[in-house]
Amino acid sequence: MIRFGCDYLEGCHPGILERLRETNMEQTPGYGRDTHCERAKELIRRAVGVPEAEVHFLVGGTQTNTVVIKSLLSPCEGAVCVDNGHINVHESGAIESTGHKVLPLPGAEGLMEAAVLRRYLEDFHSDSTKEHRVQPGMVYISHPSEFGTLYTRRQLEELHAVCGEFGLPLFLDGARLGYGLMAPGTDVTLETLAELCDVFYIGGTKVGALFGEAVVLPRPGRVRSFRTIIKQQGGLLAKGRLLGIQFEALFEPPQGGDAHDAVYFEISKHAVQQALRIRKAFEARGIPMLYNSVTNQQFPVLTQKQYDALGRDFSFELWQRMEDGRLATRFCTSWATLAANVDILVSAVGGL
Amino acid sequence: MIRFGCDYLEGCHPGILERLRETNMEQTPGYGRDTHCERAKELIRRAVGVPEAEVHFLVGGTQTNTVVIKSLLSPCEGAVCVDNGHINVHESGAIESTGHKVLPLPGAEGLMEAAVLRRYLEDFHSDSTKEHRVQPGMVYISHPSEFGTLYTRRQLEELHAVCGEFGLPLFLDGARLGYGLMAPGTDVTLETLAELCDVFYIGGTKVGALFGEAVVLPRPGRVRSFRTIIKQQGGLLAKGRLLGIQFEALFEPPQGGDAHDAVYFEISKHAVQQALRIRKAFEARGIPMLYNSVTNQQFPVLTQKQYDALGRDFSFELWQRMEDGRLATRFCTSWATLAANVDILVSAVGGL
Amino acid sequence: MIRFGCDYLEGCHPGILERLRETNMEQTPGYGRDTHCERAKELIRRAVGVPEAEVHFLVGGTQTNTVVIKSLLSPCEGAVCVDNGHINVHESGAIESTGHKVLPLPGAEGLMEAAVLRRYLEDFHSDSTKEHRVQPGMVYISHPSEFGTLYTRRQLEELHAVCGEFGLPLFLDGARLGYGLMAPGTDVTLETLAELCDVFYIGGTKVGALFGEAVVLPRPGRVRSFRTIIKQQGGLLAKGRLLGIQFEALFEPPQGGDAHDAVYFEISKHAVQQALRIRKAFEARGIPMLYNSVTNQQFPVLTQKQYDALGRDFSFELWQRMEDGRLATRFCTSWATLAANVDILVSAVGGL
Amino acid sequence: MIRFGCDYLEGCHPGILERLRETNMEQTPGYGRDTHCERAKELIRRAVGVPEAEVHFLVGGTQTNTVVIKSLLSPCEGAVCVDNGHINVHESGAIESTGHKVLPLPGAEGLMEAAVLRRYLEDFHSDSTKEHRVQPGMVYISHPSEFGTLYTRRQLEELHAVCGEFGLPLFLDGARLGYGLMAPGTDVTLETLAELCDVFYIGGTKVGALFGEAVVLPRPGRVRSFRTIIKQQGGLLAKGRLLGIQFEALFEPPQGGDAHDAVYFEISKHAVQQALRIRKAFEARGIPMLYNSVTNQQFPVLTQKQYDALGRDFSFELWQRMEDGRLATRFCTSWATLAANVDILVSAVGGL
Repeated sequence: MIRFGCDYLEGCHPGILERLRETNMEQTPGYGRDTHCERAKELIRRAVGVPEAEVHFLVGGTQTNTVVIKSLLSPCEGAVCVDNGHINVHESGAIESTGHKVLPLPGAEGLMEAAVLRRYLEDFHSDSTKEHRVQPGMVYISHPSEFGTLYTRRQLEELHAVCGEFGLPLFLDGARLGYGLMAPGTDVTLETLAELCDVFYIGGTKVGALFGEAVVLPRPGRVRSFRTIIKQQGGLLAKGRLLGIQFEALFEPPQGGDAHDAVYFEISKHAVQQALRIRKAFEARGIPMLYNSVTNQQFPVLTQKQYDALGRDFSFELWQRMEDGRLATRFCTSWATLAANVDILVSAVGGL
Repeated sequence: MIRFGCDYLEGCHPGILERLRETNMEQTPGYGRDTHCERAKELIRRAVGVPEAEVHFLVGGTQTNTVVIKSLLSPCEGAVCVDNGHINVHESGAIESTGHKVLPLPGAEGLMEAAVLRRYLEDFHSDSTKEHRVQPGMVYISHPSEFGTLYTRRQLEELHAVCGEFGLPLFLDGARLGYGLMAPGTDVTLETLAELCDVFYIGGTKVGALFGEAVVLPRPGRVRSFRTIIKQQGGLLAKGRLLGIQFEALFEPPQGGDAHDAVYFEISKHAVQQALRIRKAFEARGIPMLYNSVTNQQFPVLTQKQYDALGRDFSFELWQRMEDGRLATRFCTSWATLAANVDILVSAVGGL
Repeated sequence: MIRFGCDYLEGCHPGILERLRETNMEQTPGYGRDTHCERAKELIRRAVGVPEAEVHFLVGGTQTNTVVIKSLLSPCEGAVCVDNGHINVHESGAIESTGHKVLPLPGAEGLMEAAVLRRYLEDFHSDSTKEHRVQPGMVYISHPSEFGTLYTRRQLEELHAVCGEFGLPLFLDGARLGYGLMAPGTDVTLETLAELCDVFYIGGTKVGALFGEAVVLPRPGRVRSFRTIIKQQGGLLAKGRLLGIQFEALFEPPQGGDAHDAVYFEISKHAVQQALRIRKAFEARGIPMLYNSVTNQQFPVLTQKQYDALGRDFSFELWQRMEDGRLATRFCTSWATLAANVDILVSAVGGL
Repeated sequence: MIRFGCDYLEGCHPGILERLRETNMEQTPGYGRDTHCERAKELIRRAVGVPEAEVHFLVGGTQTNTVVIKSLLSPCEGAVCVDNGHINVHESGAIESTGHKVLPLPGAEGLMEAAVLRRYLEDFHSDSTKEHRVQPGMVYISHPSEFGTLYTRRQLEELHAVCGEFGLPLFLDGARLGYGLMAPGTDVTLETLAELCDVFYIGGTKVGALFGEAVVLPRPGRVRSFRTIIKQQGGLLAKGRLLGIQFEALFEPPQGGDAHDAVYFEISKHAVQQALRIRKAFEARGIPMLYNSVTNQQFPVLTQKQYDALGRDFSFELWQRMEDGRLATRFCTSWATLAANVDILVSAVGGL
C-alpha cells in the first residue's frame, strides 16, 4: 500500500532530526528564549524581507489560528472566512471556544473574493439592526486554500484594500504555505504576504517539520502580550528551542545560496512537482479534477470502478460523494513523497 | 557555567531520539490513531495496573490542565487548588480563559490538606449565599507539588474521601510525576493514583521527553468527547505518533525486566539521587532548605555572599527573597544531570 | 403616525402595573425567593400541566437563550438551529461568547424540519473526521418562528423523536409563545411543549409584561446549579419579585375561570385577531404575504408605491428587499394594539 | 417583624411607579433608542458635569460589572480588586465566565490602598516570569465598599495616579453610590468620579429604582461597540425606556432646584440619616461596629443574647461569626426605610 492520504504521514525532513540530535545536550532557557529561536526568527525575517517583523513559534495549526484570532478580536467581534474555511469546519469550535463567532461567506473554490467580502461588509453596515449582530472584526483566509487553490497577488491586493477600507486586519493561514509559494505561475511571495497581511503564518507541520508554525507580524506591536496569550492557550512549548531548531533547519540558506534556496522551499517544490505529475496522469486519462489546484493536494473525480481499482494499491482520501455517484478524492504529496512511488501511481492511473 | 536552573534545559533522553530516527519514514495515520500510540497506551495501562484505563496524549502541561479541567466542570463551577498551585499562578489565566474560576486554599508546603479542604467545603455548603458563589466542582493537586513535596498514600486517601463525600472529581497534575514515584520513602505508586484519582497525568516534558503528557482516566467514559475537547483546545498533535513513540521509549520495559524498570523510572531515580546529593551537601554546610523536598527540586536558603559565590560557576533560580535578606533558591536535576557536574557543585558548596 | 413596527412598543398590560403598585411597599427576600415568584411558578406549573416542573424567571430573551444553552452543552458541543434562528443572527454572538458554536441548518419558513435534522445528524455521525468538528449537543427551535410560522404537534413529535434518537435535548424559544398558542387552528398547547421539549420558555417581554421570560424544565433536575448559572450570566434579578408579580398577573385565572382564561391567553388572542384582520385586508387587496403566518407578525410584500403610501400614516418594518424591487415588510400587533387603529389601517390598505 | 436585612426589600420610589403609569401607552423604539433614555442620559451628564460623557443603562449590577470588565480587558488580562470585592466573591464567577481572572489584593476595610496596589504592580513587573502570569489589565473598586466604607478624594487621586502610571483603566462600582455621595463628611462627588475614573456606574437597583444601573464613560469612545457587548451579555433591555423613565425620575431636578436636589440624592440622604441613627443607638449602648461605615449599611457586633433579643422583632443579616463567639451583623436602610421603624429599633437597642 502506497499512501497519499495526507501531508503528515511521516516524521520530518532528515536534516531536522540531525539537528535535533546534534543539539540534544545543549542547555538552553525555556519557552523560546534561546539562541536557536533567535536565529530562526532572524532567518524568517530575512525570508519575508522585513527586518523588524515580529515572529512567534507555536506547535500546531488549530492552536495558531485560535491564538491569533483571539488576540485580534474584541468581545463582540467575529472572524470572516469562507464557508469551507478550516476554522469554520474542522477545528472543533476552537474559535467559538474563545467567545467569537466565525462569519462564513460563500467561497470560490475555497478562496474569498474581494467583491463578496465588500458586499457583505456594505450590507452589514447598512443594516439598521447591525448593533444586534456579531461585528466583523477581522478577515481570515488560507493560502493555499483547503482545496489547494491559490490567490494571485492581485486578489490579495483587493482583499487588502477592502480590509483597509473597513479597518479589519487580514490574517492568512499558511499551514501549507510552502506548497503555495513554490507552485508554478504564482506571483505571491513571502514578501507579498508581509506587505498585504497583518498576520500570517508559515506552516511547518505539513511542510517538513515534526510540528511547528511560525507566526509573522510584519508590523511589530500589533498585538499586546502575544506571548502570554500563547501561554494561556497552551501553545508556549517548554522546550521552545525545538521549534527554533526546526525552523533553523528549514530556513537556513545553503552555503553560498540565498534565503529562497533553503530546505523549506526545496522540499515544497518537490512536493508540488510530484503532485502535478499525478494531476497530469489523471487528466491524460480523461479524469477531471474537482478543483484547479496547482499545489500538493489533487482532487480527481473517479468512478466507483476507478476508485476501487486504485484503492487496491494506494491509500487516498474520499473527499466528497458527487450527485452522479462519482467519488471526488484527495491525493496529497509532501517533502517525503518518493518519485518512484509516484511513478507507480502514474502507471496505475494510465491503466485505469 | 553548569546549569541547575530547571528540569527542561536539554532535549530528550537519547533513546527517544533514536526511536524518532528509526521510525521517521513510517507512514501512519494522524492525530494519535497509530500503532505507536496504541502500544504506548497499552504500556501505560500496564504500568498503572488498570487494563481498561483511558489514556490520551497531549503536548504540554498548561494545555493538559486546561483540557482536563474544562472537560470536568459545569459552567458555574471552579477548580479548588492550593494558593500556590500552578494553575493559579503560572498559567496565564488558562483556566479562567475557559470560563472557570480557580478557588485557592492555603497550602502546606504546596500540599492540600484534607482537613482544610473539608472545612472549606463545609463552610461553602453552610453559606446561605452559596448560590451566588462559584460552585466547587473539582479538586486539583500536584504530585510532586510546586515545592517538590509529596503526598503520602494516607493523605491522598483522605483527599479522595473528602472528594467522594462532596461528589468532586480529584485531578492530579503529574508534570514531575516520575520524580515523585522514585523518591525514597514514598508509598505512592502509579497504582495508588489509579485507585484514588479520577484523572491524573504522567508528565513527559520534564521527565525525559521532548514534550508530551499522558492523561490517564482510570474509569473510562468519565468525560464525553475528550478527544474533541483536546482538538478544540489545540492539543491534538497532527503527527500524534510523536507522542506515542516517546512514551513507548519511556515505558517499554527492558528485556526481561518489568514495567517498573522502564526508562521513565530509571531516569527519574537518577535525577532524585543527584538532587539528594545536592541537598545533603547544603545541609552538611549548615544551609537550610526552604521546603522538605525529596524530589528533583531543592530549595537551599543562601546568604547573599553564598549566592554570589555559587553564582559564579553555576546557574540556578532565585526563588524568593526572605524577610531577613537571605535568598531562597531552586536547584533542579533531571534525567540529563551529569553526576560529575553534581560532584563539582557538591565540592563548591562544601567550600562556601 | 400609528405604529406597527414591533411587539414591544408600549409598557405593559395595565393589570401588571396595578399589581406593581399594590405590592410596592411589601418587603420580600431578594433574587426570586419570595411568595410572588412561588405563586407564579405554581400557576405556570398548572398551565403546563406538570406539577413537578421546574420554573425559573429571567429578564430577557437573549439572556434566557444564553443561560439555557450554556447550561445544556459540554465544551465542544454546539446548538443546532435553522439558519435564520434568533441565536444565529440577532443576538450579537451571545451563544458563541459562552464558547459554543451555533450549527445552522436550512429552515422551511423559519421552521426546522425533522428530515433535515435527521439527515444532518446522520451525515455527521458517518463522517470519519467528526472528531474534528463541533459536536451537535442540542436542538434549538422557536415557536412561533422568526417568521411568525408555527409547528404542528406532529412536527414537534417528529423533532422530539429525532432528538431522542440522537440523545439531544430539545429547547424551544417561546419569546412570542402566547401568539402561537392562540393562533387559529394550532394543535400545540403548553401541555404539548411540556411533553415534547426538554426546556422551553414562556415569553413575557413581547406578550404583555414589562420584561420577563419563564423557563420551564418539565423534568426537574435536568440542569445542575441552574440558578447559579443565571446569576453568573447576569440574569438573577435582585428584586426578583418583579418577575413573580408580572407572571402572577399574566397567569392568574379569573374568578371562576380556568388556567387558560388568564390574561396571558386573552391578550395573545386579541393580538392574533388584529393581525389576521390586517392580513385579510392585504390579501383582499391582492397583496401577497412573504410567509404564511397566523400569529401576531404579518409580512405583506408591497410595491414601492404601496410602501410609500402606507408609510405616510403608519410605521412598520422594512423586512427584506425582493429581487423584483418589491419590499417585504413586517406589521406586528400586541396586547396593546387598538382595534380602532387596525380599522384605520384596514381602510388604508383597501384604498391602496 | 421589621426588616433591615438588605437594601432591595421593597419595590421602587413611588415617583417612578407614577411615571411608569403615565408613560405606559407611549409607543417608543426599543433597546434604549427612545426620548426617555435620551433625557435621562442628559440629566446624568449634567449631574456628573461632563457634557460629552457616554451613558449606558443596564439592568443589574453583576451584568454591569461583567460587561464593563469584559469590554476593557484583552484576553490574558485580569481585573485587580480587593479580596472581598463583589466580583471576587458574590457574582458566581461572572468575570471568569468571560475568560478573565480576578486578581485579589488585601483590602483595608473593603478599600483598596494605593500603596498596596503600587507594590503589587511593581512586584509584578519585576517578576522575570511575569509572561506566565495573568496581566493586570484594569482596577476595580467599589464606592461605598462592600463594608459601607468610603474613599476620600485624596485616596481616589492616589489610585488614579497609580493606574495612570501603569496604564490601567480605573472602574468604580457604584451599586450603592447614592449612599456614598450623601454620607456626612465625604469629599467625593459625581464630578470627582468623572474626573478620576475611566468608567463608573450609578446604581439604581439599591437606590430607589425597580432595577437599573447607569454606566458613565466620561471620555466617550473609550470602548468599541459597547452597546453590542451589552446585547451579547444579555443586558440590552427590549423595552429600554423602562430604564430611561426610572433614571429620569431619579435625576430630574425639582422645579427651581438644581441637579443635586433630585430624588436620587434626597432618598440617599434619607437612608444614610436613618442608618446613622441606628449606629448611634448601638454605640450609645456600648456595642461596637465591625467597620467604620457612614453609609446605609451598619455592622454592629452583638453578643448571642443581644442577637436573639433583637431577632424577635427585627430581621437583619448575620454577617460573620467572630472568634470570641460574638456575631457581627448587618443592618441596612434604604429610600423606603420608615423613620418610625427606626425609632422602634433605636428604642429596642437602648433596652438591650
